[in-house]
Amino acid sequence: MAVYTDISEDELKSFLTQYDAGELMSYKGIAEGVENSNFLLHTTKAPYILTLYEKRVDRNDLPFFLGLMQHLADRGLSCPLPVPRKDGAQLGELAGRPAALISFLEGMWLRKPEARHCRDVGEALARMHLAGEGFEIRRENALSVSGWRPLWDKSVDGADDVEAGLTAEIPAELDFLEAHWPKDLPSGVIHADLFPDNVFFLNDRLSGLIDFYFACNDYLVYDLAVCINAWCFEKDCSFNLTKGMEMIAGYQSVRPLSAGEIEALPILARGSALRFFLTRLYDWIMTPAGAMVTKKDPKEYLRKLRFHQKVEHAREYGLEMKADA
Amino acid sequence: MAVYTDISEDELKSFLTQYDAGELMSYKGIAEGVENSNFLLHTTKAPYILTLYEKRVDRNDLPFFLGLMQHLADRGLSCPLPVPRKDGAQLGELAGRPAALISFLEGMWLRKPEARHCRDVGEALARMHLAGEGFEIRRENALSVSGWRPLWDKSVDGADDVEAGLTAEIPAELDFLEAHWPKDLPSGVIHADLFPDNVFFLNDRLSGLIDFYFACNDYLVYDLAVCINAWCFEKDCSFNLTKGMEMIAGYQSVRPLSAGEIEALPILARGSALRFFLTRLYDWIMTPAGAMVTKKDPKEYLRKLRFHQKVEHAREYGLEMKADA
Repeated sequence: MAVYTDISEDELKSFLTQYDAGELMSYKGIAEGVENSNFLLHTTKAPYILTLYEKRVDRNDLPFFLGLMQHLADRGLSCPLPVPRKDGAQLGELAGRPAALISFLEGMWLRKPEARHCRDVGEALARMHLAGEGFEIRRENALSVSGWRPLWDKSVDGADDVEAGLTAEIPAELDFLEAHWPKDLPSGVIHADLFPDNVFFLNDRLSGLIDFYFACNDYLVYDLAVCINAWCFEKDCSFNLTKGMEMIAGYQSVRPLSAGEIEALPILARGSALRFFLTRLYDWIMTPAGAMVTKKDPKEYLRKLRFHQKVEHAREYGLEMKADA
Repeated sequence: MAVYTDISEDELKSFLTQYDAGELMSYKGIAEGVENSNFLLHTTKAPYILTLYEKRVDRNDLPFFLGLMQHLADRGLSCPLPVPRKDGAQLGELAGRPAALISFLEGMWLRKPEARHCRDVGEALARMHLAGEGFEIRRENALSVSGWRPLWDKSVDGADDVEAGLTAEIPAELDFLEAHWPKDLPSGVIHADLFPDNVFFLNDRLSGLIDFYFACNDYLVYDLAVCINAWCFEKDCSFNLTKGMEMIAGYQSVRPLSAGEIEALPILARGSALRFFLTRLYDWIMTPAGAMVTKKDPKEYLRKLRFHQKVEHAREYGLEMKADA
């Protein structure tokens, strides 16, 4: 649920005078996105998404996010597109917050994705990686390996309340990942949060990717590891090998993985599971009672982490070895 | 914020096969309504509102609510209209809940209504009262005078924590209202909850009334008292006499008040203030910490109640006496 800031008709109409976007007919706060306030607008011209960037989003990152959407769309990726203001700027201000008008992408995210959808996601992820080439702004991944220990340090006091023993298990995992994290894999712009609610389908075909607000520069195959975690486990945290096969095959049909990337996949999946465990743990502990957000159970990612700890080779995720490999 | 039940694309598509409403293109949970889950749908045909009735709404009341919208729209009132299913029914089922597809009304509710808007609201309220004539289903007002003491009894234990002295003040007010509540005023279908967020404006003209889920049979002028409370006080609970004048004049321009209704207006305003105080008090005390709803401060209506206690005649709300009265 995300409408942190309400807006009045007057201030919205005044905001829209800076755009060539038709006359306002209605706007509704929508329950999507957790970092920002989002409204669905109808104007005489088209539907739009209006996003107000709340304080969890660093204002300095906005040119990266909005510029990336433009860059990817220019290269044929289906994603929401910032509507430029009459003065050419992508960013305005509304209710004291940075705000952007974004094209509305029809489509729906899948509450119960199936294996065939995982192939589409793998393909789209690889297409996004290729389309991201040449994007000139950089944004470090603050939530990669060097960011995990500081995050853990902020949550450690409440961790054993979530599950006894975590204060021993997690530091050991951090030691391992810091010692073995791969170096020099192919890098580029990654989505870093391509969960099912960020992928739209229309008539059973993938119609677009949304929510680039965790995008950053990192190893491309780390993004695939995030998707394996987000798409290929069932609700009981069992791993669906068919979904893994489709995801990896879909990815490779567009961008084949190198030997180094294949070798690194298990540790990247492990790291990605730890990353989502740590942010969920932090939110779980820090979110005050009464806050209007649904807290996500960090233990889901603990179970995924323990699964990956036993994986020795990407074949176990469904990688199909080629005859000549 | 109201999305209590999420729905999957598959179940929504299956639900829509019962309607002639085009192909589904997108649906978003919207932050409107507090009793039900609401989604804004785009199909190849039109935008729609999909409402899932949650357990706070009595299923037996749904034919009244949906039938009333149809009845009012048939008589020219601008309000959302239930879309009939192919089998003619207005009500279906989705995700285990009664569900209705409703036409989407463009327009926006005013965060900062002005006096001229109050005239429009008064007019529209009176038009609704006239349009409601002949509607055959009845629904008692469970939140009228006989319902207030039981509601108070459920909240009394926490009342003095909201403000010291309430456990003496409120029973005295209940005694007064029960003893002096008017009898035999003109009755009919009232909206009973026509707050600013239930009135849409488009291009500065009133474009429609929404949310008939508190509608019931009661004194028509009680509805005007609700509107005076909801529209004619400023944020600091000071009474804006100009707004009162416009509201009452707008109402009378369509449906003149009788001498009995004019005489009863102060006590009805007092009762209406108590009614919203009591439901807010109950919600304030009963809503568990962490619930995803914004609790409304009951004290706002306590201040309004105390204002009305001092009012002796409807002139003090802005009623302009006619020369021959």
